[in-house]
Amino acid sequence: MAKIKRIKFEKKVYEYLKPFHITGSIASSSTNIEIIMETGEGIIGYGEASPSFRVNGEKVEALMAMENFINEMLTDMDTNRYKSIFDVTDKLIASPSLKAGLQFCVVSIFCMEHGIKVNDFFGGVKEYIETDKTIGIDSVQNRIKEAEEIMKSGFYHIKVKVGENLADDIETMLRIADRTRGATYIVDANMGYTPKAALEFVNQIYRAGIEIAVFEQPVFYQDIDGLRFVRFHSPFPVAADESAKSRYDVFRLIKSEAVDFVNIKLMKSGISDTLAIIEMARSAGIRLMIGCMGESSVGISQSALLALGTGAFDFHDLDSHLMLREERFRGQFVQEGPIIRVL
Amino acid sequence: MAKIKRIKFEKKVYEYLKPFHITGSIASSSTNIEIIMETGEGIIGYGEASPSFRVNGEKVEALMAMENFINEMLTDMDTNRYKSIFDVTDKLIASPSLKAGLQFCVVSIFCMEHGIKVNDFFGGVKEYIETDKTIGIDSVQNRIKEAEEIMKSGFYHIKVKVGENLADDIETMLRIADRTRGATYIVDANMGYTPKAALEFVNQIYRAGIEIAVFEQPVFYQDIDGLRFVRFHSPFPVAADESAKSRYDVFRLIKSEAVDFVNIKLMKSGISDTLAIIEMARSAGIRLMIGCMGESSVGISQSALLALGTGAFDFHDLDSHLMLREERFRGQFVQEGPIIRVL
Repeated sequence: MAKIKRIKFEKKVYEYLKPFHITGSIASSSTNIEIIMETGEGIIGYGEASPSFRVNGEKVEALMAMENFINEMLTDMDTNRYKSIFDVTDKLIASPSLKAGLQFCVVSIFCMEHGIKVNDFFGGVKEYIETDKTIGIDSVQNRIKEAEEIMKSGFYHIKVKVGENLADDIETMLRIADRTRGATYIVDANMGYTPKAALEFVNQIYRAGIEIAVFEQPVFYQDIDGLRFVRFHSPFPVAADESAKSRYDVFRLIKSEAVDFVNIKLMKSGISDTLAIIEMARSAGIRLMIGCMGESSVGISQSALLALGTGAFDFHDLDSHLMLREERFRGQFVQEGPIIRVL
Repeated sequence: MAKIKRIKFEKKVYEYLKPFHITGSIASSSTNIEIIMETGEGIIGYGEASPSFRVNGEKVEALMAMENFINEMLTDMDTNRYKSIFDVTDKLIASPSLKAGLQFCVVSIFCMEHGIKVNDFFGGVKEYIETDKTIGIDSVQNRIKEAEEIMKSGFYHIKVKVGENLADDIETMLRIADRTRGATYIVDANMGYTPKAALEFVNQIYRAGIEIAVFEQPVFYQDIDGLRFVRFHSPFPVAADESAKSRYDVFRLIKSEAVDFVNIKLMKSGISDTLAIIEMARSAGIRLMIGCMGESSVGISQSALLALGTGAFDFHDLDSHLMLREERFRGQFVQEGPIIRVL
């Protein structure tokens, strides 16, 4: 028995080491909400919400203004009955990042009370995972340089952002591949292409003998038919990200046979829907990767522990904390280059 | 850290208070396997497998002969990494009841080590659930008498077995309904009807103004098209039972839009697939009930704690222990008539 007594929101601003440019968005900082949940017994759970207006329609100001409502919603609920709290927080359909941080606080308190490691709560499957590192949109020249630096620093999974200029994107990929032999590429168009442009992109890459491990969200998130079209014509696996927020989104994607992969993010789905998507994907033979928004090490911790515990992901794109300026590292995991290890 | 040291199988025979007759089968006893799992630290978890040849193709002798193999498979595995053990035991595709009992032992050890109630491990959602009681196939007269007795003993959810004689079944239902006003009916044909006979049955019941809460497995388990046909023409919700064993079965049923309900049984799916089916069903808007094979109070405990914890079921058909002669009640729950309550 651990009843929730008080929940506090704290706004935190983190600067990007370098402005982060993806299709349709350039960010110089990430504004997150740190959630502090306290029980009557004085157990404190920490969580982080990293809202995304672009993906979820969330605004930090609006989420901050929900602090009282959230306290009314959850005060006196028993964290041992964690699925009841999941059910209540599942109603936060317009603020999924808040749902994620709150649900993580609950899991974290449950684990503290019972002396369980959070990764064991999720199943204890993996001892370590390997994250990629991401190259934002930039000049062809700068992107190649960054790819080389990433590989030199020990990362072999490289995520490349594309989607604003097809010719540049193709040239970038061909030249990056030439300079980073042996690397694995995840390419993310963030909805920037039409279905036909997406096929032109993958076909050019394929003809050059280069392999893409996952091709993320080539088209507009509501264009499920377009996604399906690309999926069935692309030589590389196609993933939904912006199209795959809730468990219901993923159910429809699977039913429509629209994707090979889903990129799960706690900030889109919370923990409850993430666990559901994991089960559905395995049942349907769909593969998974896990990604992030602009989380600090506090928020990446949430995804890292879930990914370690469930062991459900082929690829891990958990690098936002590596792109942000933080006073000190606060993750509940060990980072050694691309390797994220159980503490 | 709790490493599995030894797993023991014990064969147990339980007599039915009255021979249990369903479509294509009459049983006078239930032969189960009690599983005793011990860790190096001396923690002992108990589980029960209640094999079904009719549903799963399992034979007790064959399962008993797997004791050494199971010890080789699981010895030295750490119960804190429970999902790794789920993954390994998921390979027991021809002995799902064994998988269920083994997975329950693991969950039970995990909970003992950390001082968690098993129902809290599963989410802690419900304080109590209500089970039905089942009337086997018998003469019309005897079935009516049994229905009256069941209701007199405090059960309001009555499960009626049909499927061997359409005219008798219709007469039975009409007369039972007349004598047990206010009861809720679950009707189970155990694959006994053709699709058209199934419709004839429900239409006659519907015309008489009687309601059926769930109509289980009207047709042969491989006849998914037939199931879908009945589902779309029946005025009452249609459930899969024999057609819905693994998570993969349920995925295909959902994709084919073949059912309104799934009857989950641990003995068909184990804990791992049960949790997956729960997540899929909710994502797809399918409803759930939970049933049993011939479990004693030890095995019913497994399903009861999962049902209490997840809170995922509209109906509970957890009554086999009430139909068997047991030396003493060994469930980890409180039974008060139809109510199964957290200990």
